[in-house]
Formats: sequence, C-alpha cells, structure tokens
Amino acid sequence: MNILFIMYDQLRFDYLSCAGHPHMHTPNFDRVAAKGVRFSNAYVQSPICGASRMCYYTGRYAASHGAQWNGFPLRVGEVTIGDHLRKLGMNSWIIGKTHMQADAEGMARLGLSPDSQIGARQAECGFDNWCRDDGLWAQGPDGFYDEKRSPYNEYLKSKGYPSENPWSDFANAGITDEQIASGWMFRNADQPANIREEDSETPWLTSETIRFVEEAEGPWMAHVSFIKPHWPYIVPAPYHNMYGSNHVPAPRRHDMERDNPHPVYGAYMENKIASAFQREEVRQKVIPAYMGLIKQCDDQLGRLLDHLEATGKMDDTMIVLTSDHGDYLGDHWLGEKDLFHEQSVKVPMILFDPRPEADTTRGTVNDALVESIDLAATFVEAAGGTVPDHIIEGRSLLPWLHGETPDWRKYVISEYDFSATPQAAKLGLEPRDARLFMVFDGRFKMMHTAAGYRPMLFDLETDPDEFVDLGESPDHAATLERLYSHLHEWGLRMSQRVTKSEEAIRQSRGRSGRKGVMPFLYDGSEVPEDWTKFYRGPAPKDYTND
Amino acid sequence: MNILFIMYDQLRFDYLSCAGHPHMHTPNFDRVAAKGVRFSNAYVQSPICGASRMCYYTGRYAASHGAQWNGFPLRVGEVTIGDHLRKLGMNSWIIGKTHMQADAEGMARLGLSPDSQIGARQAECGFDNWCRDDGLWAQGPDGFYDEKRSPYNEYLKSKGYPSENPWSDFANAGITDEQIASGWMFRNADQPANIREEDSETPWLTSETIRFVEEAEGPWMAHVSFIKPHWPYIVPAPYHNMYGSNHVPAPRRHDMERDNPHPVYGAYMENKIASAFQREEVRQKVIPAYMGLIKQCDDQLGRLLDHLEATGKMDDTMIVLTSDHGDYLGDHWLGEKDLFHEQSVKVPMILFDPRPEADTTRGTVNDALVESIDLAATFVEAAGGTVPDHIIEGRSLLPWLHGETPDWRKYVISEYDFSATPQAAKLGLEPRDARLFMVFDGRFKMMHTAAGYRPMLFDLETDPDEFVDLGESPDHAATLERLYSHLHEWGLRMSQRVTKSEEAIRQSRGRSGRKGVMPFLYDGSEVPEDWTKFYRGPAPKDYTND
Repeated sequence: MNILFIMYDQLRFDYLSCAGHPHMHTPNFDRVAAKGVRFSNAYVQSPICGASRMCYYTGRYAASHGAQWNGFPLRVGEVTIGDHLRKLGMNSWIIGKTHMQADAEGMARLGLSPDSQIGARQAECGFDNWCRDDGLWAQGPDGFYDEKRSPYNEYLKSKGYPSENPWSDFANAGITDEQIASGWMFRNADQPANIREEDSETPWLTSETIRFVEEAEGPWMAHVSFIKPHWPYIVPAPYHNMYGSNHVPAPRRHDMERDNPHPVYGAYMENKIASAFQREEVRQKVIPAYMGLIKQCDDQLGRLLDHLEATGKMDDTMIVLTSDHGDYLGDHWLGEKDLFHEQSVKVPMILFDPRPEADTTRGTVNDALVESIDLAATFVEAAGGTVPDHIIEGRSLLPWLHGETPDWRKYVISEYDFSATPQAAKLGLEPRDARLFMVFDGRFKMMHTAAGYRPMLFDLETDPDEFVDLGESPDHAATLERLYSHLHEWGLRMSQRVTKSEEAIRQSRGRSGRKGVMPFLYDGSEVPEDWTKFYRGPAPKDYTND
Repeated sequence: MNILFIMYDQLRFDYLSCAGHPHMHTPNFDRVAAKGVRFSNAYVQSPICGASRMCYYTGRYAASHGAQWNGFPLRVGEVTIGDHLRKLGMNSWIIGKTHMQADAEGMARLGLSPDSQIGARQAECGFDNWCRDDGLWAQGPDGFYDEKRSPYNEYLKSKGYPSENPWSDFANAGITDEQIASGWMFRNADQPANIREEDSETPWLTSETIRFVEEAEGPWMAHVSFIKPHWPYIVPAPYHNMYGSNHVPAPRRHDMERDNPHPVYGAYMENKIASAFQREEVRQKVIPAYMGLIKQCDDQLGRLLDHLEATGKMDDTMIVLTSDHGDYLGDHWLGEKDLFHEQSVKVPMILFDPRPEADTTRGTVNDALVESIDLAATFVEAAGGTVPDHIIEGRSLLPWLHGETPDWRKYVISEYDFSATPQAAKLGLEPRDARLFMVFDGRFKMMHTAAGYRPMLFDLETDPDEFVDLGESPDHAATLERLYSHLHEWGLRMSQRVTKSEEAIRQSRGRSGRKGVMPFLYDGSEVPEDWTKFYRGPAPKDYTND
C-alpha cells in the first residue's frame, strides 16, 4: 500500500460541503469522505504553519520537538516519519510545502553536509525531495522571506512568464491598468490572477503529483502539500468570481469579546491583521477569493482521484486530506490563525483506507478527539510497523478506520509559541513566557498562558461560537481544575526518552545480575552459582604483603 | 583559566569533615572548601549514575535530555558542555568514568562513525577522551556489564597483574586462603584489596590527571571522574582497616517508616539491596570500607593539589568537587541510592575559583538551592561565554562565588526513572509510569509519582531525618499544593526549543514585513513605500485573456 498524505495550507475545517458549508461545493473532498472516514474533531498541535507541520512530520508535540514557530529549526537528529517509514521499507517524499528550517548549526556540529543524502533528509525533515516548494516567495527591502529555490518559479519561467519572481508577479497578482495588482493587497483579491489557470500553483503541484504517482516505485508515502488556500488570497479565472457577497457569511464575533478581553487575545485583536479583517470590505474581497482557491483545490483533487481510479492505483493507496491550521477570516475579530478558536485550531481530517478491513466504516463521520500527530502513528501502522510510542506521541487511527472502538484519549492539547511576534513585545513578555497551551476535552476548551495571565475557558456545548469566556467564572472552578490536571499530566509526560523503547525497557528489567552487577551479595549464596563464577577461584597472586 | 571538574562516584554529602562528619577526616576536601565555597544544599537531577551524569554533562534535566537511566543512550545531537566550551575555545576532556551510552542507532541514522572525531565526541557525550574508564568491569554468565575497553585493566596488565580482568580479580578483591575474595561480596569488604595501593583505581586516575595537567594545552576543562567510593566496597591497605565499628553510626531509620509505606518506597525497602543493608553485619563490613575509600580519595586529592600548587597551576585552575549521588548505607532501611532522601539525592559541591573576584567568599558555606545542572552554566561563564539558556537549564554559580546575591530559584527538581528496575515490575507499572519527581523548596520535600500513587512529603525543618511522611496530612494540603504548582510549572518549562535562543527571538520580532510578508495590507498604504516596492510596477505581460 502507498500513502498520499495531502495537506492544504490554511484550509478551515468548515469550508467543505461534507462539513456542512452552505455555499462551498467540494464534491471531490466529499468523494474521499464517502469512501473513507471524516474525523470531525481533529485538532492541530499548533495553529501556525511551521510548528504544526513539524508536529505532523515527527508525530510529536511542539514542546517535544522544539520547533515551536515558523522558521525555528527542527533540531538535528529529531526522528521523523521519513525515518520511521524507511525502516519499514517505505520511502517518504515531499511534493510541495513543508516550512522546514534546517538546523544548520546542529548539522555543522555533526559534520552533516546538506548535499549528502543523510544531510538532505535532515534538512528536509526526513523526506526525500521530489519537488519541495514552500510557496511563499515574498520579497522586501531586507530581501526574500525564503531564500530556497522554487521549482514552481522555475516552472513558470520555463513557460515564458517574464519575471524573476513570477510567483509574485503573475501567480499571486492581478493586473490593473497594466500595473501589477499584487495579491498581497486585499483590495486586489477579487481580481483574476494574471496567469493561465493550468499554470497556477494548485494545478502545477497536482501535475507534479500525478507525475510522481506514475514514476515512483513503491511502497511510498508522498506528502503532497499545497500552498493554497493560504494567502496571498488571489486565484485565476474562472475561480476568482465564482463566489460573491451572497456567499460571505456574517463574521462570527460578538461585542462581549471586546469587553475586558484576555490580555493575549486582546493583543491579537488589535494587531494589523485583525484590524484589517475587522473591515467588512476586506472580508468581502478575501472570502470569495479564499472560496475560489478551495474550489480550485477541489477540482484538482478530482483530477488526481480520476487519475488514481483510471490507473487502478486507488485500490492500494491510502489517501489523507487535511490542513495545517484554519483561518479566522474575521471571526472573533481576528484574521489569520494563531489562537485556539475552532476556526484556527480545528482542521479537516479525511482518511481513506482502500483495504477491505475499512469497508465497514466507509462514509462515516467519527467524532473522536484526534490530534494531528496521530497521522504519523497511522502511517507507521499502515506501513506494517508497530508505533514506537517512546518517540511518536500520536496514536494510530487505523482501529477507528477498521470499525474498532479503542479506548481513546480524553483531551487534546495544542500549543502556540508567540515569542517571535509583535504581540509578545507589546505585552512585554520574555520569549520563554510567550507560550500558550490549549486543553480541549470535547466540551470545554481552556487556554493557559505561561506568562501567568488568567486562563480562558469556553463551553462549546452551551456556547459553540466561543463568545463567553468562563475563565473567571466561579461556577467553573472545578472544570478549570480538571482541565489543568490534564495539562499538568501532559506537561510531565515522558517525551524525550527517544532512545529506549517501552518494550526494550520491559525486557531489560533485572538483567544486570546476569552480567555480574549484584550490589547486594553478602557471600554469594543469594544467587545461582554461575552468576558469581567469575568472582571465585584461586587468586593468581598475592599482593597484600608487597 | 582551566577547569578541573572532579567527581567522586556515590560520595555522600556528609562523609567529609568540612560537612561535619564526626569521624571522617578529609583535610584535602576541606582545603579546597577553605579556598572556595562549599554549597550545602546541592542536589543532583537524578539519584542514579547515568542519568545524573548526563544532566551534569548537558546542563539539562533528565526529562529534557531523555537519558533517564543507566545505559539509556544520550540522543545523538544533544548539546553537551563539550560543545558549548569548544565554541568558546576551551577543550573538554574526560579522565575516568562517564557512564555514557552512545546513541548507536541515531549515529547510524546520521552516518556518524564512532571512529571519526565528531562521532567519538557524540559517543563520549561531548568530551575528548584522555582516558575514559567507566570502572565497572563486572562479568556474569551473560557476559560483561560493560563491553568497552578499560585503560585501567590495561594498566594493571602492564604492571604484571596476572589476570584477564585484574580490575575484578585484584583491584576489587581480597584474598582468603589463596582464593579470590571478591569485593562484590560484602563479607569481604574488610579485607585489603589484593593490589599495591599505588596501583589501585584512585591513585591510578590521579596519576593520569597529573599527566594530563602536565601535558595538556589550555584552556581546558577536564572532567576527572573517579569510580570510587562506589561499590564494590573494598580498598587496599592501609585504608582497609583505618575505620572500624566505633566509626559506624547507627542507621538513620525508624520503625514508623515501615508502617504503611508509600508503595514505591515500600518496594525499594524490600529489594535485595535494602534487605542486605538492613543486616547490621553488612553495615559493619561496608561502611568502614566506604570510609577507607573516601580517605584514599582525599589523600589522592592532596597529591593532585600539591602538584597544582608546586607548578603554579593552582592560580589559574578552577576546581570543582562533587558527586553523582549519595549512598543510603542502610539509612531509611535502604542501600545504594535511587530515592530522594538526603542521603541519596544531596551531594557535596565545593567550588574554588582562583580569580581575585572570588576572594570575598573564600572559605564560606552557601546554602542556596543548587542543582547539579548549574555546573554546566558555571563552566560556560567561567570560559567567558554567555549561558545559552534555551539549551542549558542550570544557572551559573559564579555570582555566588563572586559575592553577589542573585535572585535565585525557589525550588529544586530531581527525577528518577525506575522503569528498568525489578521494583517497577513488582508494582506492575508500565515503563512510562515508573517515574518519580522530587520538589524541594529548602524546607519541604515532595515526591510525586507518574503512576498516580499518593505523594510523599517531608518537613526537613521539624523532621530533618525524613521519617514522618506527611503526604496524607490534611494540615499540609496547602504545602502540597504549592509544591505541586512548582512541579507543574517545571513540567511546562520551555525545554526543547534548543535551536533558537531567547535573544535571537527578541531580535526577530516583527521583522518579516521587511522581507515582504504582510498579510494585512489592504492597498499597501499601511507600510513604508519601500516595503511593497516588489509588489508594484508595470505588469510585464497580461495573461488574463489567454
């Protein structure tokens, strides 16, 4: 069996028709959901691209792998799904975005060249590189945000797009009065991108994926990682005007949220992104473009699924559709992601397992509390391995897919390290204090801050919109205490004993005696005679009178 | 300045005359204490050789580096004091024991050969190897406990000791009726070891140290790590009969400790080692040998100090004397170490700084709460560096040595992972649940178990012997809550963001805009014009009508 692990960047959990969106029609996402299981309570370990992805790729919490924000390097030697799967005879490939930053200092300390195969895998978070493109070729007076090569820009240049950075000038810009109308500016979001639709990012990466599927030798796991519907919010025709103001919902926000908000939430509500999304003209420009980008993703997914069906590959390919985090789109007075409201931290999670064992669950919706790190465990099991649970902290979803009802986790954890943001500076926080933790038990969601602010608390049963912060409600002291006990248990979890498996420890118990270590002998009669045979016998020589 | 970081394995904090021992006379330990500062509240991060040492060598808690028990490999790439000091131009050498287990699997994954310089440093926890000898050449029917080479055994062979394992047959055995009387058997502990005193382990390693001091080019940090007074408890003449029953104190234990003991403590009280040390004849044999071994250590320390003084090297050598943990010696009904009573978890900690800045504190005793991980930070500062506090979790002791009174920690943490022991098996615990945590605030000491047992609690002010377990005392609920809040804060500490320093994060705040990432622009007027210059200008071509 092969695995297609498909990620859409910044895709909200509820912008799919199978998830109940009133206007988005996504027949191809739905097609996979109909063949598999849609997990309706799937949460990312961190609602920010880089950190979330490193959790997916390691199967470990952000606090465990330490790459807690965009561009924070993943420490050299951290074990990835690529490492786990290779041991099981399955190759791992990256097609698209990872947001991985190599630990250049650590690699240099260990003498690892990025040009070597081992070094390249370290630099690519364990994947072999089919066509990595992180898809954010932004440029300003201080240079490029990302200095790596862009296969996508190379593709556009090969197609004749006349620019040094056609990603910026064509794929992510419209045209107004013969001038570049950059997708970075929301006012241009309703324009068609100045690019042939088939050359835009999502079709290009889909073509790369089809090429991979045709050429690669299995078994393989391919991480197909689309940059879209992530900003810049701009999409080529005909997607640019498929949706309009009649499809833009009212923002899910409430004035009470602005009344004495939690300090961190308050700081986020006042940042530039939030301020932009509080303007209705921004939402009216952006949301239709965002929907168009998703629609294009769906169409391209259909193209890929058709290819898999036509070639018979659907029968031995596991398909996973998910995202690295959501997008507030003006809900809760916010834009982007970062905090722990459902719009940000919850993701689509659809798994199709082609094997007969999964037949009983096809087309079902599962509301188990899923963490994004569960995929790494799922893939190891799908590849025929046993999950090394001293390294991978997630749990395999295969039992659910196969109709079992495993004893399951009672809460999910998510983290957010905002130490590098202007919000932390504004709040006057030291980097190590600018960290947030979410605990969600399926009903109550708590946010704890390392900085010592009061917690936030929402009851999603009585307040599904998460407007009413119960963090200071005396009636909820016991609930808070319970969620805190979960958090504290999690804080003391065994996360770094990565060199010794539980089974190896069980096997080793009490074995040292048979290797001569017995710091309890009075005369040796306490143990079988052969345990002490090397400690008895004639003394070869007497030095005591030397 | 150079650094001599001297460790004595299993040396109890109170078996020195400067620490008030009524019978041990250790003029050379006292000599260093008189020139430096003796920290009287120093605790190891784990009361077991391997884990404790990895904490010393990384400056990180056991839960942070993950090598939580003897023989659990230190993960490849974990940054050590050797790495930190080398960056500062100071070499780090190992002379003696480390108990390091290389992460062979991780090294193979990264293509690191143990024969290369980088690989060797990974395999030796960051040290360059002057003469590593882990000093436990035990052998049983399943082979050697330790398969590495023993320079000490090679030395003994070169001196003509006729054995394949003279460490076992001579250095750690007496002779009775021409038969080997192994030091592994307590009944032989009062015999003189069958070896010339000058060839025994402590003088040999001292000679190696003097050779190092004469030959090495500085600046250097040398970890001089004596195996003694660790068991086997046997010592050559004249040390074997310097102490007798009149020097053996009554065991510090109380019947109330055996009344409904904490389950983990109860399991330890019943193990073979504890049972042996509950026999008075064992204590009468072992303790005089233990004291003789310490006396020999003291004499050899004097030899080293004399050499440093005679060569003028004392003037530019920082000296540290400490241990990796203590020894119960029958106190609390226990033998060996492992749990968190003072006898086990508290260690001697004497620092001499030759520089004039330290003149004001010479000969003083400091009762600050010191953690063993503080030494790594101290060494980095002594080498002229700034402590990378995103990696090293300890704090430099130099301010104390230099007469300052820094704002200091309010509690110390220690951990013990007993997953590999028969006690865990007896209690029916999964490896991940067989973990203990100590929190000590200078007065109250709590032990928490990951397995969910009740906590233990001692008030060292009213009960310095730690006989009265207050873990279930209703009067101490608030104290327990306070210590738990410390533990939980510690559990959520930022321990793995090792690739990004606090300062680097501070510097990076809000910089992405100047690299073109601005997901908040409506029309570009929000930022200086040059921030958007790459997003404006004539469109090179129009594809929108293609």
